[in-house]
Amino acid sequence: MAGSVKAFGWAAKDPSGVLSPFDFTRRPTGDHDVQIKVLYCGICHGDLHAVKNDFGFSSYPVLPGHEITGVVTEVGSKVQKFRAGDKVGVGTLVDSCRKCDQCSNNLENYCPKAVLTYGSVLPDGTSTYGGYSDIIVVDEDFVIRWPESLPMDKGAPLLCAGTTNYSPLRYYGLDKPGLHIGVAGLGGLGHVAVKFIKAFGSKVTVISTSVGKKKEALERLGADKFLVSRDQAELQAAAGTLDGIIDTVAAHHPIAPLLSLLKPHGKLISVGAVAKPLELPVFSLIMGRKMVGGSMVGGLKETQEMIDFAAKHNILPDVEMISMDYVNTAMERLEKADVKYRFVIDVGKTLKKAE
Amino acid sequence: MAGSVKAFGWAAKDPSGVLSPFDFTRRPTGDHDVQIKVLYCGICHGDLHAVKNDFGFSSYPVLPGHEITGVVTEVGSKVQKFRAGDKVGVGTLVDSCRKCDQCSNNLENYCPKAVLTYGSVLPDGTSTYGGYSDIIVVDEDFVIRWPESLPMDKGAPLLCAGTTNYSPLRYYGLDKPGLHIGVAGLGGLGHVAVKFIKAFGSKVTVISTSVGKKKEALERLGADKFLVSRDQAELQAAAGTLDGIIDTVAAHHPIAPLLSLLKPHGKLISVGAVAKPLELPVFSLIMGRKMVGGSMVGGLKETQEMIDFAAKHNILPDVEMISMDYVNTAMERLEKADVKYRFVIDVGKTLKKAE
Repeated sequence: MAGSVKAFGWAAKDPSGVLSPFDFTRRPTGDHDVQIKVLYCGICHGDLHAVKNDFGFSSYPVLPGHEITGVVTEVGSKVQKFRAGDKVGVGTLVDSCRKCDQCSNNLENYCPKAVLTYGSVLPDGTSTYGGYSDIIVVDEDFVIRWPESLPMDKGAPLLCAGTTNYSPLRYYGLDKPGLHIGVAGLGGLGHVAVKFIKAFGSKVTVISTSVGKKKEALERLGADKFLVSRDQAELQAAAGTLDGIIDTVAAHHPIAPLLSLLKPHGKLISVGAVAKPLELPVFSLIMGRKMVGGSMVGGLKETQEMIDFAAKHNILPDVEMISMDYVNTAMERLEKADVKYRFVIDVGKTLKKAE
Repeated sequence: MAGSVKAFGWAAKDPSGVLSPFDFTRRPTGDHDVQIKVLYCGICHGDLHAVKNDFGFSSYPVLPGHEITGVVTEVGSKVQKFRAGDKVGVGTLVDSCRKCDQCSNNLENYCPKAVLTYGSVLPDGTSTYGGYSDIIVVDEDFVIRWPESLPMDKGAPLLCAGTTNYSPLRYYGLDKPGLHIGVAGLGGLGHVAVKFIKAFGSKVTVISTSVGKKKEALERLGADKFLVSRDQAELQAAAGTLDGIIDTVAAHHPIAPLLSLLKPHGKLISVGAVAKPLELPVFSLIMGRKMVGGSMVGGLKETQEMIDFAAKHNILPDVEMISMDYVNTAMERLEKADVKYRFVIDVGKTLKKAE
């Protein structure tokens, strides 16, 4: 494209999911665009699904990354909110139709024409490329102002993991002090859920398959209670005690035990994308007027609100910083849940073009 | 029991579900009790499940009936709301603990100690017996004042079928003018759902397996649209058009097609008790922030509100009046969905003690 800008990153070229250096171009900075030098990018579990085409809609090359923090390097002539040098973030979306009911209600994340930060096909047939790259060009309406007090490295995963939890906690009314909320699964999403729920003033019970996470959940993350999801006696004793549960488990799992932990009128909220259908015990829903709801990240306004809330309440994910060339090992470890709890790539210092 | 009152009705003695004449006693009218001469009693699909022990918790004899209308014959010394001669109704509940969170919030239907109108075991070990009988004795707090303008025969099924629909439409916010609500299944519950939704000022789409119900749904019940649930092209064309769906289908059925009919943030509400778990496509919930909720009848305050609403808006179930000795045939026909849409037993005129 005339005037297009050279860019460089790491992409998967096929469903093996192996990432390798990749030269491509970004669009020149348009009137409403912000060009950003990427400093940090979190590795979301969705990135792993995407590079391996787990859901069947990946189009290669896949250049992942939607937990991006960086610094503005250039702004278009009509940009109003940002200037060169500003600290910013980019989450899961880079555009939407801006006209539909969803967009009109700050719910761009549910716009049928939402453009994902990577892996979306644009009208011109090209794909979007994410944050495992040196620069990114984004319309200013889809850029988050980064709070001065929030670290850009550890904070990066909030742009997906934070909003994925924050938005349903708000929408489903699970953000009130004095509630008792469960978090199923203690990984990248779950450990962030614990921190937001505590910040809202609720009690947290972590529900995990792994008893090995108990000490950490209680002592380091500040959970109030820990249940082993296969321990029938423990579950039985805790039946009917929770107002809501954020279910972050992305593997196939039974939800009947989770529903039984809910009080009447309790809400089980799925945020972990499970490909195969789960078994839904309708009786349990009916008897206690319970519900199972879903939620997918958040709109731009809410993502900004979430980031400001995280800054105010000192909410930061627990991360392991890695260099760009460690990404394939990181993906392998992520697949085995061998990370506490999120990898963040130090893109700014470690992404280097081969000589 | 000393001072107990002779009563007579029809009960099932074993899981064959066949009902036959049955002599038993009711408690004498206590200080807070109302004794009621039963005039009419609807046959709920739950009655069929109960007499056949479909859910495994029936204790025989089972004397069903929880859609009861009648006239007060005697009141206890401390009864304040009723006098002999008053027209009244009794729905699915005859008592609850009155102390728990649920009871304190007029949600007796979710009280863990709720006493069902039939088939509940009382502290003294005896079972409750329902409305297929000549008289019933009920604490006044669990008796509904029957509106003068509402027919007691046709209106009887509202006490379960009405509140089963009204309560979730209110709770889940599907009671607003201008919404577009689906009703899955056009039977005893579904046809009443259509009438309440129309009264709330919403559009109704009926979703049924049976194309034979189309004319009736549109022309007689006033539905705005009719979809055949197995017609993929029809479903596809209607995808994303509904704000909510009341799912009254009591047999195992796929809910993925129903979820696809919902707009983003749409709500699928199950009120049909399906014994086996259904398949829940979590992806669909997440992508559109949709939910699947349950609901089970309503509390006493809400049931009174529903009956008053029905009287005001002339909402009446479509019923086939039968005599008591037709009940076994009616049950067989109900099992085949061969009724439009609810049987009501004319208990007052046709329940006769064998000579």
